[in-house]
Amino acid sequence: MSPTVGVIGGGQLARMMVPPAIELGIDIRVLAEVDGASAAIAASVVGDYRDVKTVLAFARTVDVITFDHEHVPQSILRCLVEEGVVVRPGPDALHFAQDKLAMRARLSELGLPVPDWAAVASIAELDGFIAAHGGRAVVKTPRGGYDGKGVRVVSSGVEVADWFDDDNPLLVEELVSFRRELSQVLARRSSGEIALWPVVESIQRDGVCAEVIAPAPDSAGRLADVAAEVATSIAENLGVTGVLAVELFETTDDRLLVNELAMRPHNSGHWSIDGSTTSQFEQHLRAVLDLPFGATGCRDRWSVMVNVFGGSADPRRFAAALADQPEVKLHFYGKEPRPGRKVGHVTAGGHDLGDVMFRARAAAAFFED
Amino acid sequence: MSPTVGVIGGGQLARMMVPPAIELGIDIRVLAEVDGASAAIAASVVGDYRDVKTVLAFARTVDVITFDHEHVPQSILRCLVEEGVVVRPGPDALHFAQDKLAMRARLSELGLPVPDWAAVASIAELDGFIAAHGGRAVVKTPRGGYDGKGVRVVSSGVEVADWFDDDNPLLVEELVSFRRELSQVLARRSSGEIALWPVVESIQRDGVCAEVIAPAPDSAGRLADVAAEVATSIAENLGVTGVLAVELFETTDDRLLVNELAMRPHNSGHWSIDGSTTSQFEQHLRAVLDLPFGATGCRDRWSVMVNVFGGSADPRRFAAALADQPEVKLHFYGKEPRPGRKVGHVTAGGHDLGDVMFRARAAAAFFED
Repeated sequence: MSPTVGVIGGGQLARMMVPPAIELGIDIRVLAEVDGASAAIAASVVGDYRDVKTVLAFARTVDVITFDHEHVPQSILRCLVEEGVVVRPGPDALHFAQDKLAMRARLSELGLPVPDWAAVASIAELDGFIAAHGGRAVVKTPRGGYDGKGVRVVSSGVEVADWFDDDNPLLVEELVSFRRELSQVLARRSSGEIALWPVVESIQRDGVCAEVIAPAPDSAGRLADVAAEVATSIAENLGVTGVLAVELFETTDDRLLVNELAMRPHNSGHWSIDGSTTSQFEQHLRAVLDLPFGATGCRDRWSVMVNVFGGSADPRRFAAALADQPEVKLHFYGKEPRPGRKVGHVTAGGHDLGDVMFRARAAAAFFED
Repeated sequence: MSPTVGVIGGGQLARMMVPPAIELGIDIRVLAEVDGASAAIAASVVGDYRDVKTVLAFARTVDVITFDHEHVPQSILRCLVEEGVVVRPGPDALHFAQDKLAMRARLSELGLPVPDWAAVASIAELDGFIAAHGGRAVVKTPRGGYDGKGVRVVSSGVEVADWFDDDNPLLVEELVSFRRELSQVLARRSSGEIALWPVVESIQRDGVCAEVIAPAPDSAGRLADVAAEVATSIAENLGVTGVLAVELFETTDDRLLVNELAMRPHNSGHWSIDGSTTSQFEQHLRAVLDLPFGATGCRDRWSVMVNVFGGSADPRRFAAALADQPEVKLHFYGKEPRPGRKVGHVTAGGHDLGDVMFRARAAAAFFED
């Protein structure tokens, strides 16, 4: 009854796995990058996840290895597997979350709906794609991007001249005309069982998730069915274990196209901590331990999550937010506030979407810069 | 935004304070009795809470001291206060939770409804009380009792001859004829604000809480009002800070009598983790930090909590319980199972009380001896 889960990475995702681990009686240990990491309370080792000895020594203290982020090098992941460590998700699946070109190629191969895309190795090739797609396109570095980093909308190849190097092509995608962004989050056990939360609407600002509405308004029926089918197909065909988030565009001509993938708990699933019977963090733990899933229904008709960026560490703001919004749940990540830095989120729930959104935004506004 | 709360005692109550501390961004540190305590994940010191140097050194690392249990000696509490440590609840209030004779005397003085009682210093005095109350009575050691320990129902004073010593009288109470047991849990900030959860029904087996139904069936109206008034009066008159649980008898002649008090989160409030917008553990942290309270409404029409005793550590039982009851929330305390030992609890919620109770009992039954 006391299995041990090891999490590589000490960020807020590892931090938010700690409460459900405590509740389920799961021993959780974190390999953190630094002292005082977000998940410091569970850090058993502080070290470099790019150092194979550090990772292997950590892995030997746990029953299963999982992740706060997708940056652990494939060479280390494969070494862990060779040494008999249970790694979930495994290297083959994680490869598609680490390399956007590999992901695009695999999804196209599976016939899943994606934007037009190409791998381009030169400014000339990129300019060709741009010319064929209305004069603008989205260029992405295949590796290492997050929260809008490694993504540029360009009308000429020279705008990403600094990203080209001799060996590695870039990913270029058509600029999709979309009505809104959705996200389908699910969890998959190593034995195959899948549990899905309802598809949600994700509102981005400056390329970063700002708000999430669960479930996505007007999504019941075809939209929810297609989102679930696409995400299920990805989870099964890529052999995902744990939480998978599939970010989708709802296009102006009523298609759903896959934008990005994440093979870990995801910002678009944070609402589930307060809004669903089982949170994505609890479900991720169950998934990687191959335990039966909890129910994923909504506890409220509507949940709205609003991220808290930057802001002040003034405790009076904290008290004022609590006093003003006694129904809203606050979540802080133990990070030093800096302008624009994601330091927490808030979640409200209830019957009236306008009211729920007002309350979540009002609580978050107390912490704004 | 990052105050530090120190908890004396590393049991399950301290453990269950950790998740809301993580969520609110509160730094929580525990003075645990032993390595591997229930709250080990937050233990910053392992030491003896009866040693003033240990406690004082621990207290100097935090902003406020609170408790997992009520056993810290008054002499140490008073020393902390003299040294300028913020102790919540304070020694004056805790005295009434530590000494049942002092509690009975104070409640009688306040005109609050209590069973007939007396302090008895000899078998002869006790026999006098028994004779005047129908030939049977409840005898309690004034200090150190919990979960049915230190309580005996007797028909003759000789049955507690082993409890008498020269200096300390015993508490004797009439054997109340009651229909059921209720519990009113509230939290009070040091600045005076009070927040109450609905009164709950507590079902005891062998003197130990086995199940809790929230809210107590058929309690709306007078019963809920009286329970709230009594508990509020106790909190205010005893100067409680933090969570207060008031255990009540609903007598066969429709009175409410105060049975026991606890000045800390209490088993009868565990349902609030899953069943209320704000759990008793989060509210306790807010109270001792004098932060505004969260809402205490019910998230479901009915919540039922069932304790898990003893049982097996067989992980197959754990998986079977999860598979059978995906809607039920499981909470384990990281304690080695021993026959009869309280090792966790489960909570179910929903619209139909019969169904909710069935699901909670079914989940708990997987772990029974």
